[in-house]
Amino acid sequence: MQITGKNFIGFSRTTQTNKPFQVYSLVKDENLEGEFSLASSEELEQALTLAEKAFEEYREISTERRAQFLDAIAEEIMLLGDALLERCSLETGLPLARLTGERARTCSQLNLFAQLIRDGWYVDARIDKAQPERQPLPKSDIRRLLIPIGPVAVFGASNFPLAFSTAGGDTASALAAGCPVVVKAHSSHAGTNEYVSSAIIKAAQKTGMPEGVFSSLCLSHEDAINLVTHPSIKAVGFTGSRNVGMRLFNAANSRPDPIPVFAEMSAVNPVLLLEGALKEQKEKIAKDLAASVVLGAGQFCTNPGLVLALENQTTESFLLEFRKHIESAKPSVMLNKNICRAYKDGVTILQNSAATQLAEAIEEAQEYQAGAAAFTVKAEDFLADKQYSEEIFGPATLVVLCKDETEMLAILKSMEGQLTATVHANSADNKLVKKILPLLTEKAGRVIYGGYPTGVEVCHSMQHGGPFPSTTDGRSTSVGSGAIYRFLRPVAFQDIPDEFLPDALKNGNPLKILRLIDGDWTKEGIV
Amino acid sequence: MQITGKNFIGFSRTTQTNKPFQVYSLVKDENLEGEFSLASSEELEQALTLAEKAFEEYREISTERRAQFLDAIAEEIMLLGDALLERCSLETGLPLARLTGERARTCSQLNLFAQLIRDGWYVDARIDKAQPERQPLPKSDIRRLLIPIGPVAVFGASNFPLAFSTAGGDTASALAAGCPVVVKAHSSHAGTNEYVSSAIIKAAQKTGMPEGVFSSLCLSHEDAINLVTHPSIKAVGFTGSRNVGMRLFNAANSRPDPIPVFAEMSAVNPVLLLEGALKEQKEKIAKDLAASVVLGAGQFCTNPGLVLALENQTTESFLLEFRKHIESAKPSVMLNKNICRAYKDGVTILQNSAATQLAEAIEEAQEYQAGAAAFTVKAEDFLADKQYSEEIFGPATLVVLCKDETEMLAILKSMEGQLTATVHANSADNKLVKKILPLLTEKAGRVIYGGYPTGVEVCHSMQHGGPFPSTTDGRSTSVGSGAIYRFLRPVAFQDIPDEFLPDALKNGNPLKILRLIDGDWTKEGIV
Repeated sequence: MQITGKNFIGFSRTTQTNKPFQVYSLVKDENLEGEFSLASSEELEQALTLAEKAFEEYREISTERRAQFLDAIAEEIMLLGDALLERCSLETGLPLARLTGERARTCSQLNLFAQLIRDGWYVDARIDKAQPERQPLPKSDIRRLLIPIGPVAVFGASNFPLAFSTAGGDTASALAAGCPVVVKAHSSHAGTNEYVSSAIIKAAQKTGMPEGVFSSLCLSHEDAINLVTHPSIKAVGFTGSRNVGMRLFNAANSRPDPIPVFAEMSAVNPVLLLEGALKEQKEKIAKDLAASVVLGAGQFCTNPGLVLALENQTTESFLLEFRKHIESAKPSVMLNKNICRAYKDGVTILQNSAATQLAEAIEEAQEYQAGAAAFTVKAEDFLADKQYSEEIFGPATLVVLCKDETEMLAILKSMEGQLTATVHANSADNKLVKKILPLLTEKAGRVIYGGYPTGVEVCHSMQHGGPFPSTTDGRSTSVGSGAIYRFLRPVAFQDIPDEFLPDALKNGNPLKILRLIDGDWTKEGIV
Repeated sequence: MQITGKNFIGFSRTTQTNKPFQVYSLVKDENLEGEFSLASSEELEQALTLAEKAFEEYREISTERRAQFLDAIAEEIMLLGDALLERCSLETGLPLARLTGERARTCSQLNLFAQLIRDGWYVDARIDKAQPERQPLPKSDIRRLLIPIGPVAVFGASNFPLAFSTAGGDTASALAAGCPVVVKAHSSHAGTNEYVSSAIIKAAQKTGMPEGVFSSLCLSHEDAINLVTHPSIKAVGFTGSRNVGMRLFNAANSRPDPIPVFAEMSAVNPVLLLEGALKEQKEKIAKDLAASVVLGAGQFCTNPGLVLALENQTTESFLLEFRKHIESAKPSVMLNKNICRAYKDGVTILQNSAATQLAEAIEEAQEYQAGAAAFTVKAEDFLADKQYSEEIFGPATLVVLCKDETEMLAILKSMEGQLTATVHANSADNKLVKKILPLLTEKAGRVIYGGYPTGVEVCHSMQHGGPFPSTTDGRSTSVGSGAIYRFLRPVAFQDIPDEFLPDALKNGNPLKILRLIDGDWTKEGIV
């Protein structure tokens, strides 16, 4: 496939050229082939008009046909072959093996949502039958299900150029819900975006979806805000920095009609190392924790940026092990220049703080590379200064040494909302675990026992989203089938004749789904 | 019970007196017994500290015990006897018969939430079992359920002094979810608030709930905002005007950690009268629609403030009937002076507009009474001026006369989000109904066929909440068991030993609830 640099407005490609740019590859240290163009405001307007129009048709399309569309996207992505992975690797610095895995995840995510809507129960159908004889007033027939909210704006993330970008979780869940999608392409992987967008458009055309069900544009900062505040857009999905996430959140809330922004922003993902666990397997934990810290140059939203341990002999000997693994970690190239600069700034700030550098990668990091780093800080210093709890995006972690359990609990209590919280323990730690788990649950969206936060399983039970500031809405998830609920809202139908009801609510239950009828879950129809 | 005028801070009553006020009864045209006091900022802080502390204990209390608490509140409210209804009637002008019904609704609402949490499925438990042998990476055991979000601020509504106030739907759903509640009492029915608060506190003490699980305070406007922006508060429930609702919404979003505000604000609840229905039963529709308009002096959020009909002979003869019923409606006293003034201003604005007054109540309205009024306006005038689509809170309605179906559809498309939308039709209207229903569904939270929007059934299928501005979050409901989801958020547990898991997620399924295990809904345990 030839990179054209053109934006996707419905089934057309733009012909205008506006503020052209190229993608700079940190791996090759040069601009890559392909001149991209920011969409003009008129082009953005066109895409939005198409999305709004497409919604009228798309929301009425059967879930089976929507599922075929999602499956077809996965197929078309696979058909792009190695060219996609190679371009993506040059644009992001991520190795081919990782991207092969991420592509598989992206496709299985699309398939999961296809399966979910085929299964059909996701509409949460509820029926309370009429009671015409009820006193003092007759009861109407009320039936409720979830319907799509409207066109959704999706902001691609830099760190998951496939799984959280153009055809990532936000796009998959919105399309599954019945919502057209307008993607704001990430300029760092504009070529990858073009590849994937072309696959989505092909899939839409092959499966007979309405034009406007998907558009993808490179946008100026100003037009990114215009996308969020446009009356046609009904929800926003975003993964990225707290700064940009909050700008979108505030823009959406200052609309005449505020809309939800699901922004996944920042987290340090605390890992608690309790004494029993460290005594039992300090080598294994040291090795695996270090691997989690440096995985993908630490560029995961679930990167373990904070470790809590008790200040004692056991921890000290653990840290000696941990140090070795950080020192021997190979520096790796980061996603883009800004991210690399921010990482190095973050490390410098820690170096000039009351924290002590425990380890740094011995192999020197090249210009666009990040070298792993680990620091320790006393709990009292940590508690005294907010800077220690700020995320450093990259392969760095800060170990907080707590005098005792009380101090460890105090640190947990002081923490902001997190995507994840992890505890390593064995049966000797049970008493403390019981005190800690409610706190971890309060602070995080996912609580892990004996594992590492990196690696987010795509499944029905996944919760990827915690209290602010890890996300703007901890009541939602951006990974797993639960993500579909962000783009649905309930509607009740009162005394509507069967012929006009959606299939999910018809008497005969033609979709054969579980429904809550008069308070009981059943697949039975109503006679 | 003696009215003390004191605020409820946990299990204590305040002793301070601060900006004392009395409740003015429009029925008696005099101040009622009891001197109330605004809580001081310190007292508010105390209530919030107690709420935060109570949360730690309350969220761990079994659902059975929480259910007992809710049932006990209903019992204690009934034990207040007629004194509650009499005070409430004097404070609100609402007749005793209506308040008897509203009390029954309030109690059955509490019982419904008790039943819901006893049934237990509301936690939406999901389990994806581990696959240690999976390639290329082993799969962890992931389990997810919904947990309470934290202390909730509830703003009592003036128009439902029982069912949407101190122990109303917001309080019931928050307490059911496991969230302590701090009520900002409505000053128009401060005595009713004191009665009901005392019942809640008694129930809390009898069932052994932690102090701080419930507080209730009269607050200044400034402290009402302080309540919303306080770090201990994690969500807000509100029913009232758009103006106040948006002030709370904006305050919550400008917190360092924004929180959700579920504000139910304003709607005109369009009713479409199609020709077939009017031809078949114009008398009945005229009578019942007028009854819905004037019910409770029109002071319902679901009051039908807008009627759409085709401009033809059938509609004309319907309007003659409708007019009679509006003219013969008895004026009735309104909730408070401000609401009464706003109603009269709203009617005056219509009288001075391009709309034509179709009817007004013949019996003259006394000082604090509202007389019913009906207007007609041409669709083109309606479309040209936003003022016609603004809610007039009270017994007034505006009939929009549409030249043809196209104009009727154009009006529907132009409308803001609504709580409800109603269509009256018979089989002769089927073709038009099919065009209209998707539009009504897009604009409203509840779609009604052949009925009237007033009367909101409390059940599992109810959706009371539509797109902005009818509510700030159309993805939630304030009536029915679905209201509990506003105060819950999902959390995932990864590889957590069975002994530490919440009962809902344990292998053996001790709660015997439906759970989604590896994609299938089942009540089976895991062996």
